[in-house]
This record gives sequence, C-alpha cells and structure tokens, in this order.
Amino acid sequence: MRIAIINGNTNGKVTERIHEAVQRFCHPATQLSMITPEIGPISIENNLDAVVSAYAVVQEILKNQEKADAFIIACFSDPGLYAAREVTHQPVIGIAQAAMVTAVQLGYRFSILSPLRRLRPVLMDIVRRYGFEDNCSGIRTVEIGVSEAAQQAEIIQDAFLDAGRQAIELDGAEVVILGGAVLSGMDEKISKLLGVPVLDPVKCAVGQAESICQMNLTTSKVSGFTFPGKKEFKKCPEPLRMVYLNSERS
Amino acid sequence: MRIAIINGNTNGKVTERIHEAVQRFCHPATQLSMITPEIGPISIENNLDAVVSAYAVVQEILKNQEKADAFIIACFSDPGLYAAREVTHQPVIGIAQAAMVTAVQLGYRFSILSPLRRLRPVLMDIVRRYGFEDNCSGIRTVEIGVSEAAQQAEIIQDAFLDAGRQAIELDGAEVVILGGAVLSGMDEKISKLLGVPVLDPVKCAVGQAESICQMNLTTSKVSGFTFPGKKEFKKCPEPLRMVYLNSERS
Amino acid sequence: MRIAIINGNTNGKVTERIHEAVQRFCHPATQLSMITPEIGPISIENNLDAVVSAYAVVQEILKNQEKADAFIIACFSDPGLYAAREVTHQPVIGIAQAAMVTAVQLGYRFSILSPLRRLRPVLMDIVRRYGFEDNCSGIRTVEIGVSEAAQQAEIIQDAFLDAGRQAIELDGAEVVILGGAVLSGMDEKISKLLGVPVLDPVKCAVGQAESICQMNLTTSKVSGFTFPGKKEFKKCPEPLRMVYLNSERS
Amino acid sequence: MRIAIINGNTNGKVTERIHEAVQRFCHPATQLSMITPEIGPISIENNLDAVVSAYAVVQEILKNQEKADAFIIACFSDPGLYAAREVTHQPVIGIAQAAMVTAVQLGYRFSILSPLRRLRPVLMDIVRRYGFEDNCSGIRTVEIGVSEAAQQAEIIQDAFLDAGRQAIELDGAEVVILGGAVLSGMDEKISKLLGVPVLDPVKCAVGQAESICQMNLTTSKVSGFTFPGKKEFKKCPEPLRMVYLNSERS
Amino acid sequence: MRIAIINGNTNGKVTERIHEAVQRFCHPATQLSMITPEIGPISIENNLDAVVSAYAVVQEILKNQEKADAFIIACFSDPGLYAAREVTHQPVIGIAQAAMVTAVQLGYRFSILSPLRRLRPVLMDIVRRYGFEDNCSGIRTVEIGVSEAAQQAEIIQDAFLDAGRQAIELDGAEVVILGGAVLSGMDEKISKLLGVPVLDPVKCAVGQAESICQMNLTTSKVSGFTFPGKKEFKKCPEPLRMVYLNSERS
Amino acid sequence: MRIAIINGNTNGKVTERIHEAVQRFCHPATQLSMITPEIGPISIENNLDAVVSAYAVVQEILKNQEKADAFIIACFSDPGLYAAREVTHQPVIGIAQAAMVTAVQLGYRFSILSPLRRLRPVLMDIVRRYGFEDNCSGIRTVEIGVSEAAQQAEIIQDAFLDAGRQAIELDGAEVVILGGAVLSGMDEKISKLLGVPVLDPVKCAVGQAESICQMNLTTSKVSGFTFPGKKEFKKCPEPLRMVYLNSERS
Repeated sequence: MRIAIINGNTNGKVTERIHEAVQRFCHPATQLSMITPEIGPISIENNLDAVVSAYAVVQEILKNQEKADAFIIACFSDPGLYAAREVTHQPVIGIAQAAMVTAVQLGYRFSILSPLRRLRPVLMDIVRRYGFEDNCSGIRTVEIGVSEAAQQAEIIQDAFLDAGRQAIELDGAEVVILGGAVLSGMDEKISKLLGVPVLDPVKCAVGQAESICQMNLTTSKVSGFTFPGKKEFKKCPEPLRMVYLNSERS
Repeated sequence: MRIAIINGNTNGKVTERIHEAVQRFCHPATQLSMITPEIGPISIENNLDAVVSAYAVVQEILKNQEKADAFIIACFSDPGLYAAREVTHQPVIGIAQAAMVTAVQLGYRFSILSPLRRLRPVLMDIVRRYGFEDNCSGIRTVEIGVSEAAQQAEIIQDAFLDAGRQAIELDGAEVVILGGAVLSGMDEKISKLLGVPVLDPVKCAVGQAESICQMNLTTSKVSGFTFPGKKEFKKCPEPLRMVYLNSERS
Repeated sequence: MRIAIINGNTNGKVTERIHEAVQRFCHPATQLSMITPEIGPISIENNLDAVVSAYAVVQEILKNQEKADAFIIACFSDPGLYAAREVTHQPVIGIAQAAMVTAVQLGYRFSILSPLRRLRPVLMDIVRRYGFEDNCSGIRTVEIGVSEAAQQAEIIQDAFLDAGRQAIELDGAEVVILGGAVLSGMDEKISKLLGVPVLDPVKCAVGQAESICQMNLTTSKVSGFTFPGKKEFKKCPEPLRMVYLNSERS
Repeated sequence: MRIAIINGNTNGKVTERIHEAVQRFCHPATQLSMITPEIGPISIENNLDAVVSAYAVVQEILKNQEKADAFIIACFSDPGLYAAREVTHQPVIGIAQAAMVTAVQLGYRFSILSPLRRLRPVLMDIVRRYGFEDNCSGIRTVEIGVSEAAQQAEIIQDAFLDAGRQAIELDGAEVVILGGAVLSGMDEKISKLLGVPVLDPVKCAVGQAESICQMNLTTSKVSGFTFPGKKEFKKCPEPLRMVYLNSERS
Repeated sequence: MRIAIINGNTNGKVTERIHEAVQRFCHPATQLSMITPEIGPISIENNLDAVVSAYAVVQEILKNQEKADAFIIACFSDPGLYAAREVTHQPVIGIAQAAMVTAVQLGYRFSILSPLRRLRPVLMDIVRRYGFEDNCSGIRTVEIGVSEAAQQAEIIQDAFLDAGRQAIELDGAEVVILGGAVLSGMDEKISKLLGVPVLDPVKCAVGQAESICQMNLTTSKVSGFTFPGKKEFKKCPEPLRMVYLNSERS
Repeated sequence: MRIAIINGNTNGKVTERIHEAVQRFCHPATQLSMITPEIGPISIENNLDAVVSAYAVVQEILKNQEKADAFIIACFSDPGLYAAREVTHQPVIGIAQAAMVTAVQLGYRFSILSPLRRLRPVLMDIVRRYGFEDNCSGIRTVEIGVSEAAQQAEIIQDAFLDAGRQAIELDGAEVVILGGAVLSGMDEKISKLLGVPVLDPVKCAVGQAESICQMNLTTSKVSGFTFPGKKEFKKCPEPLRMVYLNSERS
C-alpha cells in the first residue's frame, strides 16, 4: 500500500527527518513517499502559516492522486484536512487527530507538548474539534521557535523533557503527544526518560492510514466530504486541478 | 470609521449585491469599502473553496491594512478569520460569528438556513466552535447551488421561506440566520413573512465592527493572535506582504 | 435612536458614573436616557440583590416602553434579562452577554474581573448560560465590597490591575472584562497598562443596542419571549403595568 | 422535622391541592406547613411571573425562618432558588432540581411534560443549568393555560397522557416528570397508565428535604451562598427583613 | 421499609462500620439489612476490583430480591449499578450518584476526597457520567491504601482534613464528599472542622432510597433497564439466579 | 506480532465467525489467536451480561498474558476495558472505541446500528464516554435478539440495510458502524449497498492493535491504569491470577 506523507511546510530537511523517523516503523509492504510542498511557509508557527499550508497541502493531494492509496498531512494543526478529504476518495489522515485517537487507547488523559506558547489556544481549539477536551490534561509549551527547534533538536530535548514531567506530575497526563512534526524522532528517547507512552504523531498517522487502507475503507462521500464540483478559480498560483480520481464512484 | 468588507469569493456581482444591502443600513459616519479578492473561487460551496478563500482573504487584508479601521470577511464559513486576526491590529469580524452573537440577544434559539445540504456538517462545526450548540435549533438546507442562488434570488426566496417555516414550527427556532453572503438583501422580506427576526449576517457584522471601532478596541495581541514573525513563503501567488501596520504597538 | 440604560441598583451616583463613561462613546444620533430604579438594592452583590433588581428592572421597562427603542440592563449579572425580553418588543441587552459576545471577537479567551469572591460561582453560571465556558480563561476576584468600589475607584484600580495581570500571565486571558457596572470608566486606563483589550460591559451593550436598532431588529415573539398574558398580581409594590407596546404586532 | 412548602403563586387553591398530594406521602414525623405568598402572580407561566415569584418566595423565607427546618419552592422553574439558599442556613429545595435528581436514579433518560409550549426554552435552560442535558430525552408540552389546568385537572389528564406516550415511544423517555406544581396529584394515575415512573416534583422535593434534614445538613456558606450583608432596599413592597437566623454560625 | 446495603467488598469490618454510621441516621420505620458479598475483593481500589465487585453485587441483589424494598451499593465507584437496576424492580441507589445529587442541592460546587491518587481519572469519569462536571470543583486525593484507611481511621483523618481545606480554599469547593464507603463515620467531625457540609455517601444513599420508596417508585423497565431474558451463563461461581421478582409487572 | 481476540461471550460459533471475518484482513505478520471465555453469558444483550463478561474477559487476559502482544475485547460495549488495561502492560483495544476513532477519520458523523432497542441508552453512554457525542448522528436499532442474529445473519441483513438507509437519509450519517461483534462479516456487503463506509468494529480493532504494537507502545502505567496490588479475592470462580507480566517495568 502506498502512503504519501505531505510535510506541511516547505523545509525539505524536516521532510527528511520525518521520513527517517517513520520508515523504520511502517509495515514492510508499505511504500512511503514523501512530499515537500512547492509553495508555502518554511515552518508552521501560527494561523497564517496554517492557512497558506492548507492551500499547499490540498494542491499537492490534487497533483498526486494517482500516486498514493492514502495521504497524511504531517503538520500538527492538520491544515487543510477537511478540504483534502473532499477532493479525494483516498483516506486523508491528520497527524493531530491520529495522535489523539491513539492516546485515548493508552491512558485516560493525554497532554500535548508544543514548541510555541502562542499555539496554546489554537491547540485547545483542535482538541475540542475532535471531541477530546475531557481527555486532555493540558497543553504545555516551551518557548522555542519552530525553525530553531528543527536545528537544535538534541539540545532542546531537555526543555520538552521538563515540560513532560510537569504534564505528568502536575496535570495528571498519562500519555504525552509531541505536538509538532518537527519533533519527529524524539519520541522513543523521551518515552524512556518519562516512563509514559510518548507519541510521534506522524507514526500514529501511518498506523491509522495502514489500518484504514487494509480494510479498503475510503472517505465517505455522501455529505460533508462530497467531491466539489468544477468551478473557476481566479489567479491561483498554479491552476487547481479539478479532476478527481474515481469521483464517478460516488 | 472605515470598514472594509471582503467578499469571500471572486464574483463581483455578489460584492455589489452585498454593498447594496448594507450601505443603506450602516451609520452615516461609516465609510464602507468593498473588496473582491483577486484570487480564489467564484463561489464558496465547500471546504476546498473555503481553504482557497482563506488564503485570498488574508492577502487582501495584508494589502489593505492602511485603508480600513476594521475588516469584515463576508462569507458564512468565516474563511481565514483567525489568520486574519493575527496579521492585523484592526478588528476582523466574521459574518457567521457576528450573526450568531446577534441572534442570541433576540431569542433563546436560532436556526441557520443554507443553500447547500453538504454544508450541514460544516456549519454544525462552526456553531460548536463559537459555543452556540445549545442555542442552535438546527440547520435547514435548500438544495440549490450557490451560483444558481446568486442568479435567481427572487425565485428561490420561496424555498428559503419554506425552510424557515419548518425551522420555526418543527425545530423551535425563534430567530433565523440567512447562512450565506449570497442571500444578502432577502432578510427584511423574509422576516415580514415569517414573523421572526431574520438576520443578514453581513449587516450584523457591520454592526459589530462599528461598535468595536467606536470603543477603539483592537484584536488582542498577547497570545493566540500575536503578529506572525517574518519568514520565507515559497512561490506564493504574489509574495505575502509581511509588514504589519502598528505591529510595534504590541 | 433612543437607548434607555437601566442601572440595576438604586444608587444614583453609579447611574451618573455609567452615563459619563458611555456618553462620550455612543453614536451622535443616539439619545441616551438613564434610569435609576425606584425600588431595589443600593448595590448588587449577591443573588438576593439580583432577585430584587430583576423585579425593579422589569418594572422600569414596563413604565418606560414608549420612551426607548432599546433597553440596556446595566448590572453584570443581567438581572431580569429574560423577563424583560418578554414584556417588550424592543431589544433588551444584558451587559454581561454584550461584553462576552464582544470579547470573543477580539481574542480566543477572556477573563472576568469582579469585585467580590462570592460572585465567582454566580459568574461561572452566567458564562455557561451564554455558551462561553470554553472561551473563558477564568474569573479573578478582588475582595472589595461593591459600594466601597464605587467610592474609591481610583485607589482600587491597582487591585484590579494585579488581578488582570494574573489573568493574562497565569490563565492565558487575551481579553479582560470588567465585571461590574460599577467599574465603568476604568477600561481605557487599565487597557493601556495591561496591553490587552479591556471591556467596559456597558459600552459593549450600547454598541450591541445601536447595531440591533440600526437593523430594525426586535426581540423574537414566537416562543420563549412571547408577551405574557394579563393576569392578577397581588400586592406588588406598584401594580405592574401589563399593557405592552405593540404587542398586537406579534 | 418541619418542612415549609412555599407555593410559587398566590393561588390558595393550588396550595391546597399540593398539600393534599404530599401530606399522605411524607414521613409521620414530618410537619408540613404550607405557605401561599402574599404578593405575586396568580400562576407562573413565563419569565415575568418567575421574576415576581422569586421576589415573593425569598420574602416568605425571610419571614418564616424560625418556623421551618427546610424550605421547598413549589414551582417548576425553581424561582428564587439561589437567592433563597443565600438568605438562610436551612436547606432550600427546588422542585425541578429535586425531580431531576430523582429521575436519573430510576432510568437513563427522563422527559418533562409541561402545560405550555412557551416554556420549552425556559425548561431546556433549567435542565442544562442542573447538568442533565444528556439525561433529558425531551420536553413535551400541551397547549393549556396553567390556570385552566388548575381548574379542569381531570379532563386535561388525557392530554398529558398522550404527551407522555409520545415521550416514551418517540423520544425514548424512561421516566416522566410532571413539570408544574399545578399537576400535583396526577402522578400515580398517569404512572399506572403509562407503565413508567411518573414523578410529582413536590413529592420528590419533600423526599430530598427530609433526607437532607435527617443528616443535619445545611446550605454551604463558604462561597456562593454566603449570607448577604445588610443593606438599604428602597421602596420594596414590605421592607425585606435582613436578619438571618443563625447567620453568626457561618 | 426494608433497605439492603450491599458493601462492595468482602471486608465484614467495613460492613459493620458502615452499619454503625448509618443506623443512627435513618428513619425509625426503616429496617436496614447489611450484606457482605460472598465473593470479591477485600477492598475496592481500582478498576479490576470494581469489575469483580460488580459481579458480586449483582449476585447478592439477585439472591436477596424478596428481602428488600430498595438496594444500596455501598462502594464509591457504584460498581454494577446499571446491571443491578436491570435485574430488579426495586430501586437501586449508587452511593456516588446519591452523594452528588445531594451535594448540588447544598452548594454550587463540590469536591471529592479520595484515599487513592490512582482513582482520580476513574472518579472524573464517574462525575461526567452523572452530568456533574460543571459542579465538580476537583478531586483531591491522599495517598493511603484503602485497607490501611480502614484500619487507622482516626489517624488519617488529618490527611483528609488537609485535603478538604485545599479543596475549599484553592478549588472553590462549597461541599465536600467523602469518596469511599470506608470513610463512613468521619463526616460530622470533618464537617465541624472544615465549616462546610461534608457528605457521607452511604447516608445520602439511605436518604435517596427512603425517599424513592416512600413515593412507591421503582426502576423504569421500558428501555435501558428492562429485565434481561433468561439465558445460559457458563461456569459462573454460583449459577446466577435468573428469576426476577415481579418481572411480570413490566 | 501476536494479537489475541477475546470474544465477549461464550458462544464458540461467534468466535469462529469473528475469526473468519478478520483473518483475511490482518497483516501477514500478525498472528491472531481467538479466545472464547470459559465463563460468562452465551451472548451480550444488556448490562448484566456485560458485567459478567467483564469479569470473564479480565480473567482471560490474566491467563493469557504471555501469549499475546495485544488484546482485543470483541464485544461492542467494551466490557472490562479499563480493568483489562490495568492488569497488563500490553495494549488492550475495545472494539467500540476502535470503531469510533476510525469512523471520525472518514466522515464528520457516524451512526451505530445495533440489534437491540434496549441497548440505545447503553450505547449513548459509551459514545459520550469516548467523547464522540458531537460526531454521532444517532443509534438505529433493529428489534432482533442477539442470538437470533447470530443464527440468521443473511436474512436479517435486510433489516440492518434499512436501518442504515434511514441513518444516512434522516440522521445525516456519513459512516455506519455495525454495533455488535455478532454482525462481523456483513460490513463489505452492506457498504456496497449503502454507498458509505461501513465499519466492522473487530477489524478496526485489529488495525488499532497492529498500529500500536508496531510503535512498541504499551498502556500507560502512571495513573489510572497502574497495576493493581495483590490482594485477597474471596470465592472467585477460579482464583484470579494476580501476577502481572512485566509489572516490575512500571
């Protein structure tokens, strides 16, 4: 089964790091392909970045429809997730949602660690959107820029370790979610040190995608995610390809 | 006070219709300016359209910062609202949120009328996001394409009238919200016929904008809506202007 | 447009202070009239005061129906709001609801500052009633009697400033609501010092009233706020006037 | 133990009917006293009536403090409940809350039958306030005036029987609450005919009061229900007696 | 009226202690019978214990159907409550639910004190299941084993006193619930020292049972709690007696 | 990886049917083992059955600790799930939770089809417990006994097909969950006929288990699911084996 992982940002190094982290993990039969969007921000640190990323992600899915059996949006705010589900029959997995559905199967309550304080209300919104506000013991942040985090991963690990300990001891977290694709690869080490399951959201998403593909399930097309009809889009960066694979099936 | 109303789509006729509907209504001192985005879809009928529209809306706000004291996003799914609040000090009003906050001051429960059945789950999500699920008596839809609606406004009025009656009699609605900028101008007539307050969301938004400006209030910049830092955006349709008016104030 | 602001308590000095705070703010065409109820408590500090105030407020609305196009109940627990909406076609705005609907358009989350610790559970109830529990970052209180607050406004400002700082830094508040009509006039100064929008609920209510009147909207009369029928009230302070302006319209 | 039941309205016949219904039911050691307020509406059919009733109820509690060990507010919207809990150490039971806490111990979900359609949003608010929205299968109403209901109890029983059947078959109700003190006395007959527990809220309240008194429990005085301080009330129907029994205890 | 109290665990000393605590309290006409299950754990400290206890509790109810008019499950996680309600017409009261419905009639918000930290998420689940998450100011725990608590009740009282003070001062609790049958007997003393109502859940349950029996109410049998049909149970400790008293009534 | 699927009931034919349905589906490297509990009910149709099943399930997990890397409880009410997570390090997946977390990744809203009307409130409770009440468009039931359903699967398929159509057309379901292990094997056929994703909960659970094992994740042991200590259990069917594999790790 072919799973395409779309990095939310245009930083190819982050794409590589994600690839490295998940390739050891996925099933032998799974063929991973990594996509770094052509347009968009170099990192996702706020709502503006997410809006541009959503656009980029949907465009990449439209361009790569034939090349994958499932798509993963590898950015913790799941930018463009619902639009992506609209434009393709293939399942589209958001890493934030994937991490949360995994977390609630391993403990009563999870906490999210995130690199930026400003993302707290954004993440609280996402937790609520997916229905997990009663399972979320809190969001702990470390004041580091995302791009900085990408560069000095080893050093800043300590900061997240501290945040994780506080989540467990003060907030009652039983599971910890690393809230950023950029933190990929730290999960095992932090888990050993904290003594609780620590989730890499991209890995969780690969697991969800494999499971859904294995069952031959595809996105429902009867209501909210029906294919959009064709229409004029003015002056878009490159014309949006409005031909949907298998849309005649719906 | 200068209020810029950004149509969510690229259809200039809709922009005109909105203008017509609200200009008679706003305060004499208010200077309205209407913006039709240069890029984006000709109508907003699904999540995909909303994603592209969000991008377009934010870009228009960035380009027009000096020209307005407040912005209104005139599309009922409030595309790009949170990103828009991030990139400017000026208040940004979403017409869906504005309509709902008005509705709850006129009755216990409101229903939303919408032109498309596929938008139901999308609208339910929006109602929940704003905290009004207990005030929402339902969403009634009429199966008409948005562009069709734009063209035959008078004829399809009857369809919405029927939906409104059902909302009142079967669902217990006390206030009716016309869930689409495209329905602008029908509110007074439908209200007379239904015997309940019927809200034109763009008018509601103008009211909210005027009120907030009058109090000299601006978007909070201490947490979720802090200005984004400057960063590289690759290959965006036109380079996003990342200079924020008054950002030094925050 | 004529807006009548009904002070919730019988303290004429508070009525004056409110008048002073809002008159500079409202639209030129707006005619404000201030009403100090003839009966009721000298200040509203608890549920008992609110019950008596509710009675007084409704009576004032019944007496002043012809004299206003909209009414504002200027007491932060919105005493008598739903009954008031019942007895008149004119819109009735509660300052607590008005402040909250304004706050959520300026930031993800707001905190309320209140002069009395005992009001915390009361205010939490109100926040929930209006649907904003997920937008409320907390209620911070300063242990000062309301009447005391009325007298030494300048001195106690510091106490609220401290509470505001804690709300922002510890609770994540992005907007601060001054939870008491008695605090009218402090908003601009505190806002400058805290660096976040600080809302004077009465001003917010004037904005809501102006906006709703401008749209010619009136309270819905089809379900929960239908006019009460005439009936016998025994021994009420002064006979409740049960003739409703325009009730034949419903 | 002495339990005072305060009818929410001034209709002595309703007081008698309530008395009749509950006296056979309560414990032998319980001394019931019935109070018909001196001021207020002849029936409670809307928010306005409830506001006046709240005032009347609190006044009766203040006047009768020494004469009872517990108070019951016998009106299904629990008018003045929180203020009543403030002004006295003795427990104060609202019949709506008492009925709901009983219902959830007998079935997963209950429905409320009410004499007036206009009360639906009011009752939904009350259900939410007490935390039972997930236990409430619905509110079914019969369009009869409350005073009419008081007069022709036997005839209109059929109407409620029909509403009850619909609640069970269409809404999934397992328990039925008779939502009005005025319906007192119908519970046993309707229960036999419907085949489910049918609750008389006043009886439920007597049970709650007896149980709480038996445990020597009193209203908590540490936060929201602390005794109000003494203060000036202008021109109230009769001066509110602001001396609280045992207030020195708190 | 005959009320059977089923201790959730097999520790006869706890059964005695519970008996002692409640016998002075209940109505003279009430005949209490105490049941210590024949099978199950010596104490209930986790989900595993609760599963076995649920089994034991249901079996005791099946065996004792003719001997009681109401049953109380005296273990704070209410093990087997819904199954118990299924197998008998008689009302079955869970002490956790009984305590919470009592608490909300005495204050806005309650806190639960519990002997074990690991029970926190379990108790939060229970609070939510009953609809009281907005009334719950928190769960404070003291790290003592339940069996230890059973043995040194006097000494550990101080630990709970401290936890209670924190609940009141830091969390805003107005009422305190002793979250464990094993704490029976401490309520009055702790209440005096804390100055707030402190609830013994078993007493609360006796009050609820007496009240429900007094009204001749029984568990609803129309939907979720319909009697189970007879069926084969393999190798159960002792064959489950599947004859239900009065099941022909439903 | 070794996954043990524990049938919730003692009906070996259901175990076989489940096996047949999932074996074609799982990964080649997965070794499935099927467990039919030695004790317990022949089918799970109510709360009583679930209580006995919970006991049986936990016992089977204790007995089979060394033989599996993950456990699945194959009964749609997830009996004993939390206790099972307590007694073992290995992940334990409930099929109801697994189906719901899968459903929300394929559509906004799902409906559950269930063989028994009496299970509706039970299932609503489960949906709420997992946080999916806003994603659940309803529960549709077909009045067939579970054992009957097990015997005439082909015939009764039509009944479920009808229920599914109503769920989609009337309730807005986008995904359908077959709410019972006994319905295993019908998913693909019904999906084709309904035109929406139809989930077999056991398959979903296998997918979740494979994914979690692949990531080497285990149940969190720091709070709610800490291993129980050893203690005396009286007269249990067979002595509960209280030795936990790898418990020293925690």
